[in-house]
Amino acid sequence: MLSEDDLHYLRRACALARHGLGDVSPNPPVGAVLVRGGEIVGEGWHRGAGLAHAEVEALAAAGGQARGATAYVSLEPCNHQGRTGPCTRELAERGVARVVFGVRDPNARAAGGAEYLRSAGIEATDAQMREARRLIEAFAVAAATDRPYVALKMATAVNGAIAARGGMRRWLTGEEARALVRSLRIEHDAVMVGAGTVRVDDPQLTVRPAHARRVPYRRIVVCEREPIPLDRRVLRRESNVETVILAPRGRAETFRALEPLARVVYADDERGRLDLGAALRALKAMGIRSVLCEGGPTLAAGLLARGLVDRLHWLIAPVVIAGAGAASSVGGDEELDFGGWHFDEVRALGADAYLSGRLQTEDGCSRD
Amino acid sequence: MLSEDDLHYLRRACALARHGLGDVSPNPPVGAVLVRGGEIVGEGWHRGAGLAHAEVEALAAAGGQARGATAYVSLEPCNHQGRTGPCTRELAERGVARVVFGVRDPNARAAGGAEYLRSAGIEATDAQMREARRLIEAFAVAAATDRPYVALKMATAVNGAIAARGGMRRWLTGEEARALVRSLRIEHDAVMVGAGTVRVDDPQLTVRPAHARRVPYRRIVVCEREPIPLDRRVLRRESNVETVILAPRGRAETFRALEPLARVVYADDERGRLDLGAALRALKAMGIRSVLCEGGPTLAAGLLARGLVDRLHWLIAPVVIAGAGAASSVGGDEELDFGGWHFDEVRALGADAYLSGRLQTEDGCSRD
Repeated sequence: MLSEDDLHYLRRACALARHGLGDVSPNPPVGAVLVRGGEIVGEGWHRGAGLAHAEVEALAAAGGQARGATAYVSLEPCNHQGRTGPCTRELAERGVARVVFGVRDPNARAAGGAEYLRSAGIEATDAQMREARRLIEAFAVAAATDRPYVALKMATAVNGAIAARGGMRRWLTGEEARALVRSLRIEHDAVMVGAGTVRVDDPQLTVRPAHARRVPYRRIVVCEREPIPLDRRVLRRESNVETVILAPRGRAETFRALEPLARVVYADDERGRLDLGAALRALKAMGIRSVLCEGGPTLAAGLLARGLVDRLHWLIAPVVIAGAGAASSVGGDEELDFGGWHFDEVRALGADAYLSGRLQTEDGCSRD
Repeated sequence: MLSEDDLHYLRRACALARHGLGDVSPNPPVGAVLVRGGEIVGEGWHRGAGLAHAEVEALAAAGGQARGATAYVSLEPCNHQGRTGPCTRELAERGVARVVFGVRDPNARAAGGAEYLRSAGIEATDAQMREARRLIEAFAVAAATDRPYVALKMATAVNGAIAARGGMRRWLTGEEARALVRSLRIEHDAVMVGAGTVRVDDPQLTVRPAHARRVPYRRIVVCEREPIPLDRRVLRRESNVETVILAPRGRAETFRALEPLARVVYADDERGRLDLGAALRALKAMGIRSVLCEGGPTLAAGLLARGLVDRLHWLIAPVVIAGAGAASSVGGDEELDFGGWHFDEVRALGADAYLSGRLQTEDGCSRD
């Protein structure tokens, strides 16, 4: 049984883990708290691949006070020798008496931590905490499939329309919603848009404010047919940012001019057309494990229709838009009637509403 | 200054007021609680036009214990002689020491209650409570304009689309959302839909479960051009329910056949076309002070474009719909880009999301 205190420290571990978002890929973010006699004696979080794990950081901070302490870790301590040693052994050797972790490690190679700890006489409890599971959602999807985790962010009017006046879509949502989108970009390995969005909106798609990422940021543009114009802002050089163009090989000639400005990756089906599944697999092969897709309507519909979206981030502005100036947020060509979504977050965000959800999954997570 | 106790009893008064919803039109719902020495000594609510006001009910329940008590009333006590006497005088005569009310009376004829009470030596405080203001929202709009209060309820996919497969729109939202819609119907004097919705969905539009309303319920169908078929369920006789057809006089001949089955009201502009403003004015003249519009897309767009919607009730199902089977929730012909909305409720409702808001207004209401 977990006490209120246990849940409090686990939440603290999750909050620490969040500091690593944007830096730790391909690893998951992890935070750890060591508590002895009702006091925190050490804290830590994983700062990047090849660097110390969260538990090791917390143990270092605790020094001799680790003996007899309870370790709260957002993720089950790893049980394998990777670039760093297994955390389970570290915890045991330093005399930690009890380990409470937020969610089991979905990575088969690293799993088995709880069993090792128990065999070493340490009480190990899986808290099955929703917040902890949410933290490794992208990691878990990327570990289980041959493509990156894909989150789709949309910002629409109440009736789902987006404005497309004068060739330039205007911001519908307020500052809080835009701040959320900035955080989402930081949390993902890459941002992705369709070529239409680059043509119409000419977004820069950088991570602002400047985030000293350990992992370079990727801007991805999906070009179904035509390349984007060479003067687009997404093609401007930015330090620590790479631009990737996904294109159909059947039209490779027309994409040659983009090659000095961006990394052009061809991904197509047997008929030479762009294939979204192949495109995502190519991204995973490049080390991209999570993608935030920010539209537009055609790309959103294509991903949704193929079941390639793992989570929706839907921002709704208190606006109704209809008529000639309106466009649909999800392209109308794809036949789509998909009810497998499950909202796990519905709340006001400034003047806007924020709905987030993922494909309905069976899971054992219940605590919040 | 109001204490936590004051707010607690005011919320209780608001909860009592809610019992009157659906019965009290054209009056506002009002609830009252009398408290002496930290104990509730009387409660009451207004049950219908011509019946006792909430304060009088509460005073009757309190008997001699009203003397020295504090009266919590969801609405400023009335100060005029209508079908019942002024509540302010009753409160003073029975020795009430203090009155706290949730919101001022927007009806000029009944207002001035606070001033009367103060002149009689009774402390009177306007709590400016959002919940109390929300209770009389429809009443206040109907009192201030020449048309009924109009609330627009929509149920859509996340991307704003509605399904229209095989000529029959299917329910997108779940049981909790449908229960909310039933409550909304009960709270309004009438439900309204466009002719297209009657043709496609053939809804019954009754108030279920059977609600013994003091005020007859009206089902309103807006026919821009053609009458609805005579076999529609909305034309079936229901006890205590009246069906009203709004039609353009220019096409009166084609509506003759409906006259034995429904009340046909002609409302048109100078060119003989249906005019939504004139239609709403006609409804107000019939004693309808609040209308719940449940679509469809054309009627919704028409009302929104003319600024005739006071509140949105937007239900969003965890579904994405696009392609040939999808329709827009707000008709695409009306040019509409209206950002004057303010969400005051955003929450999960079962598996769905519920967004509610009204046109942004300047008001002094701050407390909840």
